[in-house]
Amino acid sequence: MTDPLAHVRELFDLADDVVYLDGNSLGAPPRAVAERLDDVVRRQWGRRLIRSWSEGWWEAPQRVGDRIGRLVGAAPGQVVVGDSTSVNLFKALVGAVRGTDRSEIVVDAGTFPTDGYIAGSAAELTGLSLRPADPDDLRLDERTAVVLLNHVDYRTGRLLDMAGLTERAHEVGAKVVWDLCHSVGVLPIELDALGVDLAVGCTYKFLNGGPGSPAFLYVPSAAQPGFRQPLTGWTGHREPFAMAAEYTPDAGIGRARAGTPDILSMLALDAALDVWDGVELADVRAKGLALTARFMELVRDLPGIEVITPADGRRGHQVSLRHPEAARLMAELIAGGVIGDHRPPDVLRFGFAPLYNTFDEAERAAKALEELL
Amino acid sequence: MTDPLAHVRELFDLADDVVYLDGNSLGAPPRAVAERLDDVVRRQWGRRLIRSWSEGWWEAPQRVGDRIGRLVGAAPGQVVVGDSTSVNLFKALVGAVRGTDRSEIVVDAGTFPTDGYIAGSAAELTGLSLRPADPDDLRLDERTAVVLLNHVDYRTGRLLDMAGLTERAHEVGAKVVWDLCHSVGVLPIELDALGVDLAVGCTYKFLNGGPGSPAFLYVPSAAQPGFRQPLTGWTGHREPFAMAAEYTPDAGIGRARAGTPDILSMLALDAALDVWDGVELADVRAKGLALTARFMELVRDLPGIEVITPADGRRGHQVSLRHPEAARLMAELIAGGVIGDHRPPDVLRFGFAPLYNTFDEAERAAKALEELL
Repeated sequence: MTDPLAHVRELFDLADDVVYLDGNSLGAPPRAVAERLDDVVRRQWGRRLIRSWSEGWWEAPQRVGDRIGRLVGAAPGQVVVGDSTSVNLFKALVGAVRGTDRSEIVVDAGTFPTDGYIAGSAAELTGLSLRPADPDDLRLDERTAVVLLNHVDYRTGRLLDMAGLTERAHEVGAKVVWDLCHSVGVLPIELDALGVDLAVGCTYKFLNGGPGSPAFLYVPSAAQPGFRQPLTGWTGHREPFAMAAEYTPDAGIGRARAGTPDILSMLALDAALDVWDGVELADVRAKGLALTARFMELVRDLPGIEVITPADGRRGHQVSLRHPEAARLMAELIAGGVIGDHRPPDVLRFGFAPLYNTFDEAERAAKALEELL
Repeated sequence: MTDPLAHVRELFDLADDVVYLDGNSLGAPPRAVAERLDDVVRRQWGRRLIRSWSEGWWEAPQRVGDRIGRLVGAAPGQVVVGDSTSVNLFKALVGAVRGTDRSEIVVDAGTFPTDGYIAGSAAELTGLSLRPADPDDLRLDERTAVVLLNHVDYRTGRLLDMAGLTERAHEVGAKVVWDLCHSVGVLPIELDALGVDLAVGCTYKFLNGGPGSPAFLYVPSAAQPGFRQPLTGWTGHREPFAMAAEYTPDAGIGRARAGTPDILSMLALDAALDVWDGVELADVRAKGLALTARFMELVRDLPGIEVITPADGRRGHQVSLRHPEAARLMAELIAGGVIGDHRPPDVLRFGFAPLYNTFDEAERAAKALEELL
């Protein structure tokens, strides 16, 4: 295929001697980040000092949030950046169930562990029970307060049907929290249009924000007045600098903020998001499906390999292969310059980031695996 | 006095045309930070990519924590860096009261607001009541589960007696959580020796970690096995990469971790901490008391000025002045190159960071204020 994104790779600082297929774990650095951070440290912090807080820093969580909003189908004023995904999951879940007369939180049984762990803690503190369930058989009913689902499964790369599952939750009066960690930057997402209740996501995978860059939380405008999240730090206050004794949450998405925002990481992420300017998510999606299809086609029949990522369109941009010696194989691939990762016990993961990965790389990676087998 | 810290100022990137007295809000940048961040982005992230997680990133929260431990009298393995102060307060307070049969959380009535807000949320979620109290009249008894105190008051600069108040809490069987935001890097602190139960602090004031740099949480070794904090993110798991369905906390301080650590900010802080190498906190304290004493002496009798920071040794390294036109005065001081800050309604704050502030600066600032009055 002709690649409408071929020019975007130049915006990344990637060595040519590696095939980097772990952008689903840690995205590669956009070139703009190092330069921007240098300006943030030397000029904004060093020369403007405390004054920078009123020259753009304070509003950064919402401003950068709006940039992510564009990638997830959220109109401005509904996404805030800050804290980790785990912390935002806690805000979302406790906020979702506060005051409910329902009794259970349902979580995808195969979820990324942190979602289950945090859901367990949120359930314990709010007096609800936690029920892990298969996304194909959620059995939601009027006992269900909220269901937490991963849009793309971290292990298999499977994509869930956000529209259908959101509707199913709403049919029984339950809320749904979507974890977008493995789908933001992968495919068009329509949070507003689908009436999603809450969503969280990380920014260090396909958004290339850097190691441990701050996560985001989506709360739709209509739900904001009733959203009472538990991490009532001062920056979520309606008038943070009034230093009032009583906590009065911000009227809007600001109430999802907790402590002082981490500016260095926030502005590194801001710089990293520049690579999305002029990029259409439909192009990203088309190329991602093509890259993963090409790779799957090449490795499908290799000895001992089982492809566990769906071959139809119900996948993200990650291909997961099962092999009994997955750990050894990945170590050898990495030693040879093909970088994916291994998830115990027996899964090899290869992430394809359409902004910088090429079809040639998909072929080189498949070839390297073939030679090891 | 001769200044044993005079050479340390050279380690900071500070312009000579400003008198920067707001290090109690945002410390000035150590020169090492910009260079280190450049290496982290270009080499560690850009060249080593995902491999850096096993080349020092993963352990950074505890490694940097131990460096802060040295500044607060904590033996290794008891301090972890990550998240904001607000988030760590929530971990500390919920962890402190879990399973208690006591009924109240007590908080310093004049506390920095976030402490009170978070304490209110922790109380609500755990079913306890919150009682604000004057630190001079805490009235602790067998109903008190935990008391949360600010070591140095953000508004007045007053220093509380950590030894005496910790002992008072322990006499009635209550725990104490110390907020060290305005005292870490200011004076020698002896958490281990005083038997403090839990402590939190920020790193962007006198530790110069950068805007919104990650905070820290201290949990003494003996208390770690029983410390169940509510933000059970995957990185606090005993075996995070086993991706187990059940949450089993790390045996040690690692259980205080939540989500993926923010590496750019963490390693900026790590670089910033280099300025403490070879520095004795006793020298920092002596110079800080002398700087603040000199400034107070010069401004004490200015018209309309009331010094609200204690004149005896019971203060941090901040001088707070009350004046009916505090907001206007501070704006004019800043316009003239003397940077402090204003806390509503009528408080002017001047922070003295002994690592980089000089006696000449104390005099220039006093002179500037005098000319305005």
